[in-house]
Amino acid sequence: MGSDTVTLASGHKMPLVGFGLWKVPADKASDIVYNAIRAGYRLFDGAYDYQNEKEAGQGIKRAIDEGLVKREEIFVTTKLWNNYHRKEHAVAMAKAQNEAWGLGYIDLYLIHFPVALRYIDPETLRYPAWWMDAEQKVIETDKVPTQETWQALEQIVDTGITKSIGISNAQAQTLYDIQRYARHPISSLQIEHHPYLVQSDLVELAQEEGIVITAYSSFGPQSFLELPPAFKARTQDVSLLFDVDAVKTAATRVGKTPAQVLLRWATQRNIAVIPKSNNVDRLQQNLEVGTGSFALTQEEIKAISALDKGLRFNDPGFYLHKPLRIFA
Amino acid sequence: MGSDTVTLASGHKMPLVGFGLWKVPADKASDIVYNAIRAGYRLFDGAYDYQNEKEAGQGIKRAIDEGLVKREEIFVTTKLWNNYHRKEHAVAMAKAQNEAWGLGYIDLYLIHFPVALRYIDPETLRYPAWWMDAEQKVIETDKVPTQETWQALEQIVDTGITKSIGISNAQAQTLYDIQRYARHPISSLQIEHHPYLVQSDLVELAQEEGIVITAYSSFGPQSFLELPPAFKARTQDVSLLFDVDAVKTAATRVGKTPAQVLLRWATQRNIAVIPKSNNVDRLQQNLEVGTGSFALTQEEIKAISALDKGLRFNDPGFYLHKPLRIFA
Repeated sequence: MGSDTVTLASGHKMPLVGFGLWKVPADKASDIVYNAIRAGYRLFDGAYDYQNEKEAGQGIKRAIDEGLVKREEIFVTTKLWNNYHRKEHAVAMAKAQNEAWGLGYIDLYLIHFPVALRYIDPETLRYPAWWMDAEQKVIETDKVPTQETWQALEQIVDTGITKSIGISNAQAQTLYDIQRYARHPISSLQIEHHPYLVQSDLVELAQEEGIVITAYSSFGPQSFLELPPAFKARTQDVSLLFDVDAVKTAATRVGKTPAQVLLRWATQRNIAVIPKSNNVDRLQQNLEVGTGSFALTQEEIKAISALDKGLRFNDPGFYLHKPLRIFA
Repeated sequence: MGSDTVTLASGHKMPLVGFGLWKVPADKASDIVYNAIRAGYRLFDGAYDYQNEKEAGQGIKRAIDEGLVKREEIFVTTKLWNNYHRKEHAVAMAKAQNEAWGLGYIDLYLIHFPVALRYIDPETLRYPAWWMDAEQKVIETDKVPTQETWQALEQIVDTGITKSIGISNAQAQTLYDIQRYARHPISSLQIEHHPYLVQSDLVELAQEEGIVITAYSSFGPQSFLELPPAFKARTQDVSLLFDVDAVKTAATRVGKTPAQVLLRWATQRNIAVIPKSNNVDRLQQNLEVGTGSFALTQEEIKAISALDKGLRFNDPGFYLHKPLRIFA
């Protein structure tokens, strides 16, 4: 359990099931990560944006110090935030983030969004200032081509700070264009992926190109209920995926939870997942969705995929063009 | 009629309604274009891919020679084909295409698809070899970043061959990235756009960025019925847009044809259209959809937009990844 891996284009292996650190409070992150390692988790998916890298790293170090795992058995993913897309900023941030984790190196470093915003000193960047200046409520973009940022990531590989690189929230044409100039390959594409947003063309294209898909928000609307009202707005017109017939029927047949079925729906198609849970039982259950766990039939997978509505909850276009609706 | 214009980011004006040359046979193109000018058309939308540039240019020259129009009253759009994305090839093709038209300059030159394929000598490129080698039935892509091709287009502006540049079939992130490095702005984005494929986020983003949308295949499935079976496959599950209630109801109220309603649904939202017709009456009707023609109510526009199914008939992903399904 939890030891299933996929091989990235870089040649390194990544666990198929990991633990997502989005929305994990910094003051609890160390214990949560430590306990997740005890439960069997080996992949931790972080980001500068989540503001808990240092604490997550402390949890991992504790487990290493106690001899539960070795560093090389752990896989750390983290991400470059939008305000640091210029080459010199990206390189400096990777260095600082690597120091925050305190584990010697990062396994996978991703561009969080293919959207460059004006530089803000990390010392003065305050949530929810991420997408804009906290006072002025405007977003200022910066003219940094994705190529400049990708080349910064390649330099971060060259200097040994990260072993593999990739991108999150990219469209097909962005992957395609990066591959035209890449010196180091795109190892993973991390995207919102659940039965309401299947993105089958994008998944197929990435997989044909040897790019491993990592799914976030595997439970769909469920992941967004704890967010501010503007984020939740899109969740109100749809059923929670745990309550949907196609999911419940499969769960009953295989004797698993709806959450496990949603994760297996992804892993069975070679898509990595990074669920998060604060509950010990669910933490364990979420891990038991790898290759050796249980199998959905092709009909069950199809029935779940047929729930597709193209419904995106985490939409950069929405943030960039309708910021006041979020922060109003 | 037909004299409504929109101002492009380049500062030049473009007619809101034009004539599309896709699928116009070369041996009829000259007469069809000449007659379209007599009918009032001033914008002609061509492409290297359509293989009728020289003949279309002859039709325009005849009208100019007869004093029907001046060159500066005509707006010629044409497009760079996928096999010529490398800078030296793009520059050479623009020059050759401009000579084929024979009108001194091009008004708007577009990247046809943000997809670079291996160079094939134009002399040996035969339809349907466009997306692949005719013998081997494989597509060979080429590693040309979109930036190299865009910079070639900028050089084509600098040398006076074209007045404005743009791109067709681009996703939002491609526009966003080009704007990060562009020296000359993206004047127009040409996309498949009809009530079954509204792409409202992309349209909104482009328009906010000052990029004029040009819609192709405004009639949806209708445009694809004359194509080979693989292209038609996606048309079989949907009604023709001329037969759909929301379109027919609006047509009855305004006393226009369903085709005119579909075109006006676009132009009323500042989206340029480039219908094609071989029929003289329809040619005239299609032109009468500009600002001064008739108005749909906001409710009618909404009802037509609500037909959206995300249904794309002209899909580069489809061509690139499932070529044998097309040419089998």
